[in-house]
This record gives sequence, C-alpha cells and structure tokens, in this order.
Amino acid sequence: MIDAVVVGAAGYTGAELTRLIAQHPGMRLRAVTSTADAGVRVSDLYPALSSVDLAYVEPDVDAIARDAEVAFLAVPHTAAMGLVPRLLDAGVRVVDLSADFRFRDAALYERWYGAFHVAPALLDEAVYGLPEVSRRGIAEARLVACPGCYPTAALIAAVPALEDGVALPGRVVVDAKSGVSGAGRSPSPGTHFVTANESLQAYKVAAHRHAPEIAAGLEIAAGAKVALTFVPHLVPMTRGLLATVYMEARDGLTQAEAWDVYSRRYAGEPFVTVHSSGRMPSTAEVRGANRAHVGVQLDEGSRTLVVTAAIDNLVKGAAGQAVQCANIMCGFCETDGLDGLAPAV
Amino acid sequence: MIDAVVVGAAGYTGAELTRLIAQHPGMRLRAVTSTADAGVRVSDLYPALSSVDLAYVEPDVDAIARDAEVAFLAVPHTAAMGLVPRLLDAGVRVVDLSADFRFRDAALYERWYGAFHVAPALLDEAVYGLPEVSRRGIAEARLVACPGCYPTAALIAAVPALEDGVALPGRVVVDAKSGVSGAGRSPSPGTHFVTANESLQAYKVAAHRHAPEIAAGLEIAAGAKVALTFVPHLVPMTRGLLATVYMEARDGLTQAEAWDVYSRRYAGEPFVTVHSSGRMPSTAEVRGANRAHVGVQLDEGSRTLVVTAAIDNLVKGAAGQAVQCANIMCGFCETDGLDGLAPAV
Amino acid sequence: MIDAVVVGAAGYTGAELTRLIAQHPGMRLRAVTSTADAGVRVSDLYPALSSVDLAYVEPDVDAIARDAEVAFLAVPHTAAMGLVPRLLDAGVRVVDLSADFRFRDAALYERWYGAFHVAPALLDEAVYGLPEVSRRGIAEARLVACPGCYPTAALIAAVPALEDGVALPGRVVVDAKSGVSGAGRSPSPGTHFVTANESLQAYKVAAHRHAPEIAAGLEIAAGAKVALTFVPHLVPMTRGLLATVYMEARDGLTQAEAWDVYSRRYAGEPFVTVHSSGRMPSTAEVRGANRAHVGVQLDEGSRTLVVTAAIDNLVKGAAGQAVQCANIMCGFCETDGLDGLAPAV
Amino acid sequence: MIDAVVVGAAGYTGAELTRLIAQHPGMRLRAVTSTADAGVRVSDLYPALSSVDLAYVEPDVDAIARDAEVAFLAVPHTAAMGLVPRLLDAGVRVVDLSADFRFRDAALYERWYGAFHVAPALLDEAVYGLPEVSRRGIAEARLVACPGCYPTAALIAAVPALEDGVALPGRVVVDAKSGVSGAGRSPSPGTHFVTANESLQAYKVAAHRHAPEIAAGLEIAAGAKVALTFVPHLVPMTRGLLATVYMEARDGLTQAEAWDVYSRRYAGEPFVTVHSSGRMPSTAEVRGANRAHVGVQLDEGSRTLVVTAAIDNLVKGAAGQAVQCANIMCGFCETDGLDGLAPAV
Repeated sequence: MIDAVVVGAAGYTGAELTRLIAQHPGMRLRAVTSTADAGVRVSDLYPALSSVDLAYVEPDVDAIARDAEVAFLAVPHTAAMGLVPRLLDAGVRVVDLSADFRFRDAALYERWYGAFHVAPALLDEAVYGLPEVSRRGIAEARLVACPGCYPTAALIAAVPALEDGVALPGRVVVDAKSGVSGAGRSPSPGTHFVTANESLQAYKVAAHRHAPEIAAGLEIAAGAKVALTFVPHLVPMTRGLLATVYMEARDGLTQAEAWDVYSRRYAGEPFVTVHSSGRMPSTAEVRGANRAHVGVQLDEGSRTLVVTAAIDNLVKGAAGQAVQCANIMCGFCETDGLDGLAPAV
Repeated sequence: MIDAVVVGAAGYTGAELTRLIAQHPGMRLRAVTSTADAGVRVSDLYPALSSVDLAYVEPDVDAIARDAEVAFLAVPHTAAMGLVPRLLDAGVRVVDLSADFRFRDAALYERWYGAFHVAPALLDEAVYGLPEVSRRGIAEARLVACPGCYPTAALIAAVPALEDGVALPGRVVVDAKSGVSGAGRSPSPGTHFVTANESLQAYKVAAHRHAPEIAAGLEIAAGAKVALTFVPHLVPMTRGLLATVYMEARDGLTQAEAWDVYSRRYAGEPFVTVHSSGRMPSTAEVRGANRAHVGVQLDEGSRTLVVTAAIDNLVKGAAGQAVQCANIMCGFCETDGLDGLAPAV
Repeated sequence: MIDAVVVGAAGYTGAELTRLIAQHPGMRLRAVTSTADAGVRVSDLYPALSSVDLAYVEPDVDAIARDAEVAFLAVPHTAAMGLVPRLLDAGVRVVDLSADFRFRDAALYERWYGAFHVAPALLDEAVYGLPEVSRRGIAEARLVACPGCYPTAALIAAVPALEDGVALPGRVVVDAKSGVSGAGRSPSPGTHFVTANESLQAYKVAAHRHAPEIAAGLEIAAGAKVALTFVPHLVPMTRGLLATVYMEARDGLTQAEAWDVYSRRYAGEPFVTVHSSGRMPSTAEVRGANRAHVGVQLDEGSRTLVVTAAIDNLVKGAAGQAVQCANIMCGFCETDGLDGLAPAV
Repeated sequence: MIDAVVVGAAGYTGAELTRLIAQHPGMRLRAVTSTADAGVRVSDLYPALSSVDLAYVEPDVDAIARDAEVAFLAVPHTAAMGLVPRLLDAGVRVVDLSADFRFRDAALYERWYGAFHVAPALLDEAVYGLPEVSRRGIAEARLVACPGCYPTAALIAAVPALEDGVALPGRVVVDAKSGVSGAGRSPSPGTHFVTANESLQAYKVAAHRHAPEIAAGLEIAAGAKVALTFVPHLVPMTRGLLATVYMEARDGLTQAEAWDVYSRRYAGEPFVTVHSSGRMPSTAEVRGANRAHVGVQLDEGSRTLVVTAAIDNLVKGAAGQAVQCANIMCGFCETDGLDGLAPAV
C-alpha cells in the first residue's frame, strides 16, 4: 500500500480524488487538506462520500512530506509551485493538477497566469501527465503536471492526425463545451443554477488559459507551428466535456484512412475508445469514468477532418487522470482503481 | 464464481444490472437476453458499458437454466411468472425485479395488474427483497421478489417509526418524486426531453400500482391497518427518487426520540445512512450508489413526523438492490460489487 | 398612463416586474432602484431585457414618492416596512412583495422573521394580495401585501375545499416543490448549478417562514383551526412551483362533487384553470405566465382529497400577481399586461 | 384583421405559431390543422395554450384556401410543395417553414432531401425568409421560404463579415449547438429525457441538410465560393441555439473594426442586438423571444474572426421569423405580435 495525501481536497477535483483514492486497491488515503474547510468532515461537505472517515486538515508541508509517498495537488495555480520543491526534496512523488508546471517556458506561464514562477528549475523536469502521449516519461517522473480538462480532450482528439500527417499543421479550430463543474465550487453569478441552466454561451474567446497549453501539445504532435483558435463554451450539465476539433485534411485523405489512424493509435490504450467510423461519442457515455471516447469524420466537401472527444471533465479531465499518472509512477497496474464503468444511463 | 444471467437486459434496469454484475468480484455474467435487441452488442446500445463483451440473445428458458446459477429477471410484469417455475425447477435461484411475486394475495395482484396469476403457488414462497426488512428470509430463499422503486424508499422511510410505535398507524401520506429513468426506456410523449425538462407534475394520483405494495409493507410494520395516500411526481432529472413520508406522531414524541429510533434501527445497515438530526438527504448524494440516505424531522406544531429517504431509483431502487439480495442468497458478502460511492458531485 | 417605480429591481422578482411593467399598456416604468447595482444598465444585468432603456438608481424615498403613482417593493423583509408609511403618506399606492405586511399580528411576524415591526399600525389596513380570495379588498386598498410563492399555490389549491366544507379542517399536508429561482439571485452553495442540478431535497422542514402564512389562509377559509404540515423541496428547474395538498375528505364526498367545487369556485377567474376531473397540471404549462392550473383527485381508499396547483413562482407567485393587484387597485382591466401565454413547450 | 391558418399546427413549431398568431394584434387565427391530432383541442395537447379556443382539423386545401389570407406551413418537407401551388392560385400568401422552397436549384434539393421536386417553377419566385438579408424581396413576395433554425443563426453571425470583406471567403467553420426541441415532437431514443439530459454530442457531421442552405447563404454574402464545415450538436436544454462561426480575418483587421462592421450592419434591425465588443450572448437571453443576439471577437493570434449568434430555435429560428415575414408581406409593423421580451431569467 502506498500512502497518499490530497492537498486542496475540498474542491470538486479534490473531492473526486478523495473518492477515487479511497476506493483504490493500492493506495491508502492518509490525509485530505483544505484551508477553508479545515475541521469539517469529508462526509459532511460531500454526503456522497459517506464512507470516507476523515476530516479536512490545514495543509502543512512537513506533515504532508511525512505522511505521503505520493501527493496530489488540487490547489489553484501559484499555490502548487511553492509546495512542490519541498515535497520533492522530501522524496514525495508529486502529481500536480494545477497549471504551475505544465509549460516548459516560465515566460509563457507568467504571461498567461500573471504570476512569477518561483520554481522555474523544475519546469524541465516536470512531465506532462497525458499518458496517451507521454507515458514513458511519467513512469520515471518525480513530478507530473496534469493537463487541464480542455487540453486533455483537445489533444486526445487532435494528436493522432497531426502526428501521422493526415491533418496538416496550420489552422486548427478547437470548439469545446464543458459542464458547469469545470468552473469550480465557488458560487458565482455565472455558476448560479438560474444563470447556467437552460443556457449556452461561449466565454473567454481567444483568451482562455488552456489555449497556450493546447497549442503547445498540438505543435509537439505536428512538429510545426499551429495557428490554434480555441473557444470554450459553458453547457447546462454538471459533468462532461466535448472537444470538437477541425483540422485541414491532407490531400487525398479518405474517411477510412483517417479512422484507421485513430484506431491504430489508440488500439492499446486502456482508457480510450475510438468509435466505429463516423459515430460520435456523447459525454454521458463517460460520466464518472476515466475514459475518452473519440469519433472521427472527414468532411469531404470542405476537406476538413472533424474529430470529437468526450471525457468527464472531473475524471479523465482531472482526478482520474491524476490517479492514472500516479499508477504509472508507482508501478501499479494503470487501471487500478479506475476501472469503474459509467452508469449505463 | 457464480454464473449469472440477466433476462430483459436491454432496459434501463437491465443495463444497470449488466454494469453491476460485470464488475462483481464473485459473479460471472454469462448472458444478457433481450427480445427486441437480440443480436445487438451491449456496448453499441449502451456505449458506457464499453468493456462488456457480450451481445443480447433471445431469451430461452432452457439456455438460461443451463447457464445460470442465479437469474435476474428485469422483464415486465406477467413475463416473469411464466419463467420462474421452470427456472426454480432447474435449480436456478431467481431474483425477480418485476411485480409478479411481490404480493401474497393473487387477487390483489390481479386487481392492480389486470392479469391472471399463473404461478400463485409460489406467492407464499417468494420473499420480498428488501434486506433491511426481510434479510433472514432472503438468505434462505430460492425466489426473491424485489420491491418497486417507490416502495423501497417509502418503506425505508416509514418502517422504523411504525414498527417502534413512535408513529401511529392511521393516515400516512407518501409524497414521492422520481427522476425520469423510472419511466423506462421506451420513448413516449411523457419522457420526451421537451416534455419532462423544466417541468414537474403529479401523476397516477391514487392509482399507481406501487400503492398497494407500499400499504402492505406499512401494515406489516405497524401491525395494523394504514390509510395510505400515495402520490408520485415526475421530476426533471435522470436518476434519483425521494420519498417524503408524513405520519401522525405518538403523543409526547420528541425530535430526539424520533431520530434515535431511526439511528438505532439502521445502525448496522451497510447501505443506509441516517443523517444527523433534522438534516435532509438529497438524491444527488446517492446517485449511482446502492444507498438510502434518510432524514428525520418532527413537526411539533402539527404533531407530524416527516421522514425523507433518498435513493437512486435504478440502483437501491432496482438493480443494486437485486444484487444485494443475490449476495445474501448466494452467501457473498452483502456489499460485494456494491461498494462504489456516488460521485462527489 | 400611471407612473410606476420598482424598488429592489435587480433581483429576480424585480427583474420580472421590470419586464411586465415595461410591456404594460397602462403603466409607465419611471425608475428601477437597486442599492447594489446602482448605475448599471438594466440590459447589462439582464440581457433579456434588451429594450428596457433604464439604469438602476439608488433607492430614495422622496424620489420614489415624487415619481410613482404606484410603487412595487421587491425588497427583502424588514426593508419594506420602513418605506411604506412614507410612500402612503405621499399618496403613493404600494404593492409590497415582501413579508412585512402579510400578517395581521405583529407578534407572529416578529416570531417568524426575527425582527421588530416598525409599522404595526398598518397591518390592519394592508390587504392580502391574493385576488382569488380578496379581490374586493384589493380594489380599495392603498397597501397590498402580496403572498409568498408557496402560499399562493397552496391557498389556490386548498381554499375552495375548506371554504365549501368538502374537506375537513384538521390535518392538512402541503408538500411543495419549487424551482431554484425561488431561492433568489445571490449565489450560494445551495444554488450552485452543480449542487442543485440532478438533485432533489426537502429543506426547512417544519421551519419555513411561509408556513404560518399558509396556515393563516387555510384557517380563514375553513373558519377553524388547521394543523398544517408544510414541507418545501428544491427541484432542479429554473422556474415553476407545484403544491400538492392533502386534506381529509368529508364523509360521502365523491370525485365528481370535489371537482365541481373547484370548477365553480374558479369559473370566473381570469388566471385560474381547473383541469378536467383527475387531470394534473405541470409547471411547464404556466412557465412565464400569470396563471395557476389546478388538478383535483379524491383518493377513495384513504378518503383524502389531493389537489395540486402549478404556478410560475416568479409570475403568479410574485411579479405577475403584484401587477394583477396593481391592475385591480388602479382600475385597469385585471388582465392588462398579463395576458401572455406560456410558450407551448 | 387578416385571416391566418396554420397547417401542421400540432408540432412544436406549429404550436409556437399558434401561440404567436393567437396573440397577434392584426391576425385572426381561423384554423389549425393536423392529420394525426384532428379533433383534439389545442389546449388539451398544449395546456400552455389554455386560451386558444380551437380544435385541430384535418388539412383540406380548399378549406385553407377559403379561410386564409395567409397560410403558415409547418409541415415536413415534401408535404409543402404539393400545397403551395394550389394556395398561391387561390390568392393566399404562403409562409412555408419547410425546406421545399429554400433552394434555387431543384437538383440540390433533390440530392439533399432525396425527393423529386413537384413545383420547381416556383423556386425562382420564392423569397428566402431571412428579413435581415432579404427584407425587400419578402415585402413583395407571394411565397416566402423560411430558413432552417441553424441557417438563421449561422447567417446572422457570418453575413456581415463576408459581405463587408473583413472575413475572407475560403474555409468557414460553423459549430452549432441546439436545444432538444429542434429535434421535433416525435418521441425517439435520441430525444428521450434520459438520453438527452446531462449529455452533449455532435451529430450528422458533414451530413446535415442545413449545410447546403448555410453554404448558399454564405456564398451570396461573400460573392465567392466558401468551403463550409458545419457540425451541429445536441445540448441538454429545451430551447436555444448558438452558432459559433470561425472565419479567416482579412489582413490588418482589428477587433474594433470587426465589431464596427456588425454594429453598423444591424443598427436598424428591430430583432438583432450586437453586444458590446467582445461580449458573448447566451441562449437564455432570447428564450421565447424573436431575437438574435450577436457577439464578435477577433482572435489575434490565429487571425480568426469568431462570431456567435444566439436565438430561440422555435422563435427566431422558426415560428417567430415566419410571423416576422408575414408582417412584412402583409404590411403590418414588422414587430407586431413579436415584441415580447424573454423572461428576465
């Protein structure tokens, strides 16, 4: 059994981490921290977690270093980079779900997140936690920087075509749609039920912080510059994220070839399903599960390759993927604690 | 490993049975039957069940008898009573989720379900599958008749007070609210998204078939006649069922005593949580989980005891409870395959 | 044209008042006040109100008295009672949507609202603004106290049977269900989309402030004491409120008689529809409209009369009813500005 | 008063036409036809339309020709083209909401709709019913072919930039999202609440019949060929449609210029609002209203102009726009019967 601590456990991602680790066959959940909710029992804040017999404690880096073999950081950006060096020094493996170590380039981080980076020396060491792209690096990492929810879906949808060359680098449009849990637990006018329900809206057009992260992943896959347009939308559902990706098809590409590229690329992946040719996934299929379902369709008329990827933003887009990374880092079977199916309906 | 077959597996309850049994540590899912969807792969009908490598087959009683040690019947009423005698004769244990064996009295069945009962000799043998009330009988049963979704929640809410006598038999009101999955998979005007969404409505007032089933359970608990009024409502959500039960409080009853009755009654139950005094459960807390969460509040002014019970209508209200009964019948740990928590949000 | 001002116009009820008055053929909307949003344009806060060419202003009682012939107060309780005497003194007619003038008895107000009443002398003069019950008084009133949303539906459902005597005073259960807009515009954990969506919960059992208001109305109708149990529930929809009322039926009452009582009682009412015998209304039918739809069903077995009433909590339960009262007070046709039908779906 | 008949009035679009015409100050609703629901009262099928005192009648072209000065056809494609010639011959003005007269080219119609066109001679005469583009033609038309819901939003979003030249013809992506009412009233697996709720999915990628209609409109605006990719999505809400349009920006284009093009283009339009620069509309803002709200944002990094347009698919996307066209054809004020605001929330 490996001892785990969740730092920042009272938010939605932290709560899902709590659920997954509490049920993990190889991990023991030693502590859950929260500054705002210290002293509150987990099952009082999240009655669904009725069998989790813990209360939130104030985060204390020494205590975490002492208790944890692996630490999951579900804290806001800027809060993680202060903790990470001290945890690594203490020999703790770190799975960071914040944005602090997602970029190689501190300047890019500082431009988009408006904060100085206090641990730039670790940016080179950190491995991007998208196992379908960087599994090998994760296995050897001390520090994994888990992708954002939008980048997870966008890259799973786009990478195979760009790597293979069936889609051209150049203009790529990622039109993404997320359920409201992606906005986090803090109540706000935009997450009020009355505002979000029965409504649909684009937001942060050309200004969302996940854009440079997606662009970086696309460019690695393509080996070339990509002109990305990323537009996220808020959708009236609790969970679920769909990325619809539009890429310019290579001359002569057929639907059968395009589908084949995806089918082969993800053949061995335990958590990715490529639907039969032309069939599109729904977010409901993956609700609560650590899965990505992918659909591939070439638009012959406009020579555009359309790929959609559906994930649960809190699981494959956050907590589940973090556990998947930890499984790889710690030598567990990659699917341990993550093989639950989504409810049938 | 015990071999299981799900008969009528293509409906919502059947699909949830498929999910739970496919993940059960002690059961092997040998076959799933469906008349309408024979030949279709499970994962094509329910993409969430991506890892279930089976196709639906026509139901054939000889094949079921050969393949199954335990058979789960998720077929409509009247369809089950023809199958059950032949399966029992073949030595198969049967968990019937239909209404066919819920009543002791064939005449009552015939009045409410409008059909002759073809196996009345088995009505006495069948055990009502509500483990919190009849666990001992289930352990020894060949045939378990699982409760309807509304009776499950209503009885969990009402039984402790009536058994103990803190609530008086007499007038009991059960105002129940269900998500739309309770209406089943067949598309109809009433289950169209546009009809059901953003709407709320009582239906089958004083005419729902679960009323006599609830009344029977209340009367056993109270040891006396009960004048039940049962009104179900359709609520715009996929899953979840809440029963709000109103009972006349015994003279002198206090909130502390009432809560104590529930707390003690359910202290050892693995799947029932009684919330702290006065706190009411939400259906979201139990979504996807085989759990019932209960809240207890005495209205001092009107001397009415109000108890609410929240369940997932497809799990504790159907498929999960059926697996719970099968665990008891087959000698498994009662929680095997059922310990998944609801998502935190 | 009569000049109107909405005080406290930035909340949901205030916004619906703004919409209705802006489209009213006989009223001119002179000002909308808001302390928190002073200076903001109405159409910036509520883009749906795109054609309302006003900005919120700080509430100033002298300005209101100068501008308004009729003032609508959509402020929280305790805020209204300070304004009302000064507005009445200035000759302004007042439609108060707060709770401040709903009770005859200042002590009852003080017990439930936890505040001293600063204008008790006006409690006798204020007329309860439920036109289906007190139309004549409203016509002559200077001050109308509009009912809460729950009392509106509960009383419309219960009053005819209690007045007529087909239901007995005694135990009355009101199980009510409201959409989330009833909780108001302030973001909170309970109104977060992720909390409220796909969930259902009873709240403030035996402790909701609308209980004494409902009880008072029932007792006036029955001419006797009533033991009311009132349990509100939060339902995952934006608008809509359904009250399900359970009353003890008079001996010998038939369904036909019960239905007839309601049908006759509401025959001339412009905003109440009694559905054909046994048919139950949905909240969607009245969405956005100033209407109440009523269904009546006697449960023969338990001798309980079940009546459900569906309203839009923000319209017939708040803003629409206020305009209806103002129409009566000001001598307009009662349906002026209120004849819009709900969308067909 | 002008006499109107709605043909095919029992579907969702027909029901909204019924509502709008019943409340229109200049139209008298003479008849509503339905083959499937003949004999049923409107208020029984749609309880929201409680004050509409009509029953559906079998469609009879002679009766329609006799009763109607203007006929609204809300029938499926292929059903309209048989009726239109006979109605025009009888001197009836026709507003056709089907696809039968939307294309100039019968071959294009036949390819996408799989049916021979029986009235190709009228294709040249029919005017496309998007007043913001073809108001003048509508004013003189006998026959107006109303756009589909997706084309309405897509063209309102794209036309100004293509007409003006601030966006280049070439690759245009229209990623559109619709509420479930767009799928029509017939119950089906895809419109079942349990399927559609809490889910999101692309469908008919590169295969939706609205694609050629959108392409035709874009090409007229651009005066050049356009390579359109159109992907519709189903969103878990009843009403509302958002089109997110991606166009290649002209060299040197600034955000201020782009916004200015839209602001000027729609300055006089009674039903179109261009939000302040960079602000994006939500579908809730226009729910139930005959409005389109537009947001404009240049993505400087990728030189892509992103424009979103929000409409109510059943109003500006169908019934409301049809009434708007009829107002223009009949010489009414264009906003007659259409000035209702969306509910504030």
